[in-house]
Amino acid sequence: MNQPAANVTGRENLIAQLRELLGERVSTSASVLEQHGRGESWHPSQPPDAVCFARSTDEVAAIVRLCAASATPIVAYGTGTSLEGQVQAVNGGICIDLSQMDEVLEVNAEDLDCRVQAGVTRRALNRYLRDTGLFFPVDPGADTSIGGMTATRASGTNAVRYGTMRENVLGLTVVTASGEVIRTGTRARKSAAGYDLTRLFVGSEGTLGIITEVCLRLYGLAETISAAIVNFPDIRSAAEATMQTIQLGIPVARIELVETGYIEAINAYSKTDYPELDTLFLEFHGTPDAVAEQVRLVEEISRDFGATGFRWAEREEDRQRLWRARHDAYYAGLAVRPGSRGYVTDVCVPISRLAECIAETQADVAAAGVFAPIIGHVGDGNFHATIFIDPDDEAEFEKALGLDKRMVERALAMGGTCTGEHGIGIGKLKHMRREHGDGAVELMRTIKQALDPQNIMNPGKVIDC
Amino acid sequence: MNQPAANVTGRENLIAQLRELLGERVSTSASVLEQHGRGESWHPSQPPDAVCFARSTDEVAAIVRLCAASATPIVAYGTGTSLEGQVQAVNGGICIDLSQMDEVLEVNAEDLDCRVQAGVTRRALNRYLRDTGLFFPVDPGADTSIGGMTATRASGTNAVRYGTMRENVLGLTVVTASGEVIRTGTRARKSAAGYDLTRLFVGSEGTLGIITEVCLRLYGLAETISAAIVNFPDIRSAAEATMQTIQLGIPVARIELVETGYIEAINAYSKTDYPELDTLFLEFHGTPDAVAEQVRLVEEISRDFGATGFRWAEREEDRQRLWRARHDAYYAGLAVRPGSRGYVTDVCVPISRLAECIAETQADVAAAGVFAPIIGHVGDGNFHATIFIDPDDEAEFEKALGLDKRMVERALAMGGTCTGEHGIGIGKLKHMRREHGDGAVELMRTIKQALDPQNIMNPGKVIDC
Repeated sequence: MNQPAANVTGRENLIAQLRELLGERVSTSASVLEQHGRGESWHPSQPPDAVCFARSTDEVAAIVRLCAASATPIVAYGTGTSLEGQVQAVNGGICIDLSQMDEVLEVNAEDLDCRVQAGVTRRALNRYLRDTGLFFPVDPGADTSIGGMTATRASGTNAVRYGTMRENVLGLTVVTASGEVIRTGTRARKSAAGYDLTRLFVGSEGTLGIITEVCLRLYGLAETISAAIVNFPDIRSAAEATMQTIQLGIPVARIELVETGYIEAINAYSKTDYPELDTLFLEFHGTPDAVAEQVRLVEEISRDFGATGFRWAEREEDRQRLWRARHDAYYAGLAVRPGSRGYVTDVCVPISRLAECIAETQADVAAAGVFAPIIGHVGDGNFHATIFIDPDDEAEFEKALGLDKRMVERALAMGGTCTGEHGIGIGKLKHMRREHGDGAVELMRTIKQALDPQNIMNPGKVIDC
Repeated sequence: MNQPAANVTGRENLIAQLRELLGERVSTSASVLEQHGRGESWHPSQPPDAVCFARSTDEVAAIVRLCAASATPIVAYGTGTSLEGQVQAVNGGICIDLSQMDEVLEVNAEDLDCRVQAGVTRRALNRYLRDTGLFFPVDPGADTSIGGMTATRASGTNAVRYGTMRENVLGLTVVTASGEVIRTGTRARKSAAGYDLTRLFVGSEGTLGIITEVCLRLYGLAETISAAIVNFPDIRSAAEATMQTIQLGIPVARIELVETGYIEAINAYSKTDYPELDTLFLEFHGTPDAVAEQVRLVEEISRDFGATGFRWAEREEDRQRLWRARHDAYYAGLAVRPGSRGYVTDVCVPISRLAECIAETQADVAAAGVFAPIIGHVGDGNFHATIFIDPDDEAEFEKALGLDKRMVERALAMGGTCTGEHGIGIGKLKHMRREHGDGAVELMRTIKQALDPQNIMNPGKVIDC
């Protein structure tokens, strides 16, 4: 019975020490704690005991050392847009908000790379790059921080052409569980020098260390960019056209499937007038000749699968509107059911199983009788059914859980994964053993225990230690 | 004084147990041991106590369990073509030769992937794929095993377009240090499900576990392939043309620099008649229009840097001859100095520093007065000066060591790496702390100790435990 009281005193002492270090930049206000205890998903808020707003790697290291001294849990926080409960402080502790670490540290245009602090958001980076002719392609729906995207191995609509965070992070600055600062990777495009620590931290969701700086690959803006929407008679046809496009190696920059239900929601929310049919959103990057050739090939394939109504967006503002509408789909879905929350699923399968997996999911959603339109980065074999649920309706939540479970089982049986891009957090912990097997999960646990023996780095996520 | 005798007895007992398991497929013949104790570099042979020829993952696991019981070192062996002493049995022990695990287990043409046993060589795989319209692009000089290529994070001439083993391995079957079999990765193109164990084992050089099966990405053969050699007035011009090609984002499939000294050696060895000048070997993949456009752009850039003598190879046999000549450069160099061994350097720098790094290296080689022509995968910023030395000439060896050290220091000062593709082995151990810093090296050591607490998996490589 004394232990909690001792902990409370210890926690208060720690917060006093943090205030000595950071002054006003430590908050224990209820609203700040509440906001930092949740992402954008249905997972309920689990607030930390205090939030520290760090401004440098050295400050993060100092905070971690103070927390480590009392074995206090530490959760890193970027924009709070995670979807699997990654920022929930399941054991309380200290949240380190990195949003004030928002400096672009260097851009090496001639090497197509840059280095940023973890709190820089993807849109802020691309605004910064606007006059250089370069861009950073990875684009999850929200305007997330680069640190958070790195920690969750994020991807988005451009991954089919440009890869995910796994392919686009060259190196990192990381604060370890003991509060030491290490650097991983080099600016060389490849290296065979030792263990790939960069890739180990990418996707580790703050459980092995806190990413404070990221060196990223950049790309030259294509000479020609052309976007289109194409309507299909049904979702299977749209998926089959996607499969053929990928199997023929056509280097589409984006190929996104949006189910009719989402198109209706988008039209209502974004004041657009897209035909209310299962639709592919496409984009092509390249020289004028290359784009023309890709467009011709994809049009041919699409017509073979019954496509109609190609609508092109050549002008930049039209393309921006088209992709903004696509990115706002989640918010459009929420607006269809005011007060609802989105339970977002995230399976990814080998491309040959895509049409089958999507068609079975659609039938499953229909049978469950929920509003759960399908949307996805189908060029990667990755799609989501977003189940919009009333958070107070237990029965609806149970339906969502069941649908999600069946989607994951279907994807794993097809050689796929339970999460293409959202990560594990707390929401997908239950699928880890089924996906990886006990041996691989135990190996992950061994790594976690070796790098964070006190289990203070975002405890309860990715690996259930 | 008794310990060595006890060890010898223990080793004999172990070998007897291995013979029970594998029968004739355990060898202790002096020539087999000698052959398995060395790669293709100058590093002297350090033979194991026995070589086991495994035929399945389960056999490898059984061998590892037997070795683990007596804390006996284990070295995995593929084709023996490593260049940094990766297979040397520095503490003796058991070599597991995987060359008889040479089965292509599955090819999923519609998903552009396959699964192979570790002993399949890259050329055997491509022969197997010949009728499918697919190929596997990663091509280090020798006809190496896929397992060895994975373990050393190999690349080669196609990496500028298709990536290295890091990008092209989807998943692995690994025997851990305790003899357990685990699987990593899925056949999905992306996943955010937990720690990236696949990338942790890629490049770990057998120090964390033994890779027995590999799931690989495949690519469709391009509709049009066109190769060329282009001569330049000096090496800096060739490097500058490369830099501009990469910076403009032209998707060359291969762009290889071969210095005059190597061209002379190749002409003598391969009976070719290439102009004896600093040369780029180029290849373009794509649709006819795309290839024509790339060719035009690269010709323009090359002429801007003083190039002459474009020589095209459109027919497949001409291309094969051209690339075979390029791949045989190392053997051509050895033939220039019969009895010599190649001391191969392997730096990689950010592309903006390439011309400067190569020009300084060329001057350094000239000042050292050795035969060390430069060759490289310059599109990645990666190049080698191969120092052909008389293995009995101590002074020459010292010169090679000095040249290598200065090359590494130069590359690291430019933000590069001490090894683009050959790995660390024992040869580059001394550079690890300078490249990564003490903190990152200690973190690697922590991982090594956690996954291999007895330090039996290829001890003495990558990390000096």
